[in-house]
Formats: sequence, structure tokens, C-alpha cells
Amino acid sequence: MKPINISEKFKLFNEHWSPRKIGELNGQQLLLAKIKGEFIWHTHEDEDELFIIIKGCLKIEFPDETITLNEGEMYIIPKGVAHKPIAKEEVHVMLFEPLSTKHTGDIVNELTVETYKTI
Amino acid sequence: MKPINISEKFKLFNEHWSPRKIGELNGQQLLLAKIKGEFIWHTHEDEDELFIIIKGCLKIEFPDETITLNEGEMYIIPKGVAHKPIAKEEVHVMLFEPLSTKHTGDIVNELTVETYKTI
Repeated sequence: MKPINISEKFKLFNEHWSPRKIGELNGQQLLLAKIKGEFIWHTHEDEDELFIIIKGCLKIEFPDETITLNEGEMYIIPKGVAHKPIAKEEVHVMLFEPLSTKHTGDIVNELTVETYKTI
Repeated sequence: MKPINISEKFKLFNEHWSPRKIGELNGQQLLLAKIKGEFIWHTHEDEDELFIIIKGCLKIEFPDETITLNEGEMYIIPKGVAHKPIAKEEVHVMLFEPLSTKHTGDIVNELTVETYKTI
């Protein structure tokens, strides 16, 4: 394997809400995503999900509160907790989650990506 | 849980080669470490280990090659592969690995940390 430059990987795609896979380890996957606008409410029943903000400002709505994550900040969304990411301007995010994690939880709609491309 | 600011967490400790835990998810742990100098050769037989360089330049020696990781670069060391990190100047690194991962693999010496402090 070669070293992975995170900034260079972000240059390889532009689609919003379509994570790219940059690594796998211990049954987990490391994803990069560019996101802008509002995602849908969804829940991962069995998987915790880590968000690390590489660029921009991300809001995540939960049923009882909303958090704001700025560049260099991270948050672990516990399994079973409904959430809705919102990015007013484009955000670059790194995600870490089990390979089993479905993009939009148990919901399938036009935003759902079934299989992430590896870059 | 509150958002975690990675830079702020790095300000909370100064020891070298003594990782601090900043999160757990899906049986994995997210660690921050400040490292400088040469670590020991060691192997994690059952755990892949992710290094993300937050600041500085890290060399990792393997039996057959040496890689150089700069700020914003990452590398997944596959399970079973012997490695030796070397930091000429101080490096700030984020590590992602299973909770079962031992600091210095099956070797125990004066550098070995048995339990990581959570910050």
C-alpha cells in the first residue's frame, strides 16, 4: 500500500452525498464525502458513525438538539440515534464506520448510494 | 456527547509515545499521540492500524521498505506486519485501531503503555 494523501483524494470527485472509500481496516471503512444542502433523517441501528470535518461547517440535527461541527472537529453518532446532516456551504468530511453501514439506514430514496466507489 | 476539537485535545498532554483516547466506536478506539524519536519494532498480529498525520513528518520502517508520511497523509498498517515509527521532530498523529490492540504488540518494555488515558 502507498501513503494516502487526503487532500489529493478529495480532488478526485465532486458529487455531493456520494461517499468514496479510501480504506478498510478491521471490518471498518474510511470514507470521504463532499456534502452540501440537507440530507435525510436516517438511523444506523447497529453502527456508530464517526464524522471528522476536514473543511467547512456541518450541522447535524438530532431529535432533541442540533450540533455544529467546524473544521478540525469530530463527533461520534451512537448507533440507534436518528440524525440529519445539513451543510449550508460545501463541507468535506471523513467518515469512519463498519462496512455493514447503509448510507441512508433503512430508508432507500434517490439519495441512497448502495455501493461506495473506492478511490 | 459534545463535539471534539482535535487541536484542543492535543493541547492536553505533552508526553511522547503515550497515546490518549478521544473516542470509542464499534469496538475500535480513536487515539491521539505525540511522538518523537525512535519507537521499537513491534507487530499487532490481529489488528490493522491506521495512522493519520495531523502535524509533522513520520517515517515508518517495515522489514523491506521505509515510508514517509507528511501532514494530511495516512497509512493503514496491515495486521501481522512488523513496523517501527521514527519521528525526527515531534509528530502529532491520530490512530484508529481495535480496542484489543496492544501498544507495543507482544513486546513489553519501558515504552509500553498498558492503559490509555481518556481525554
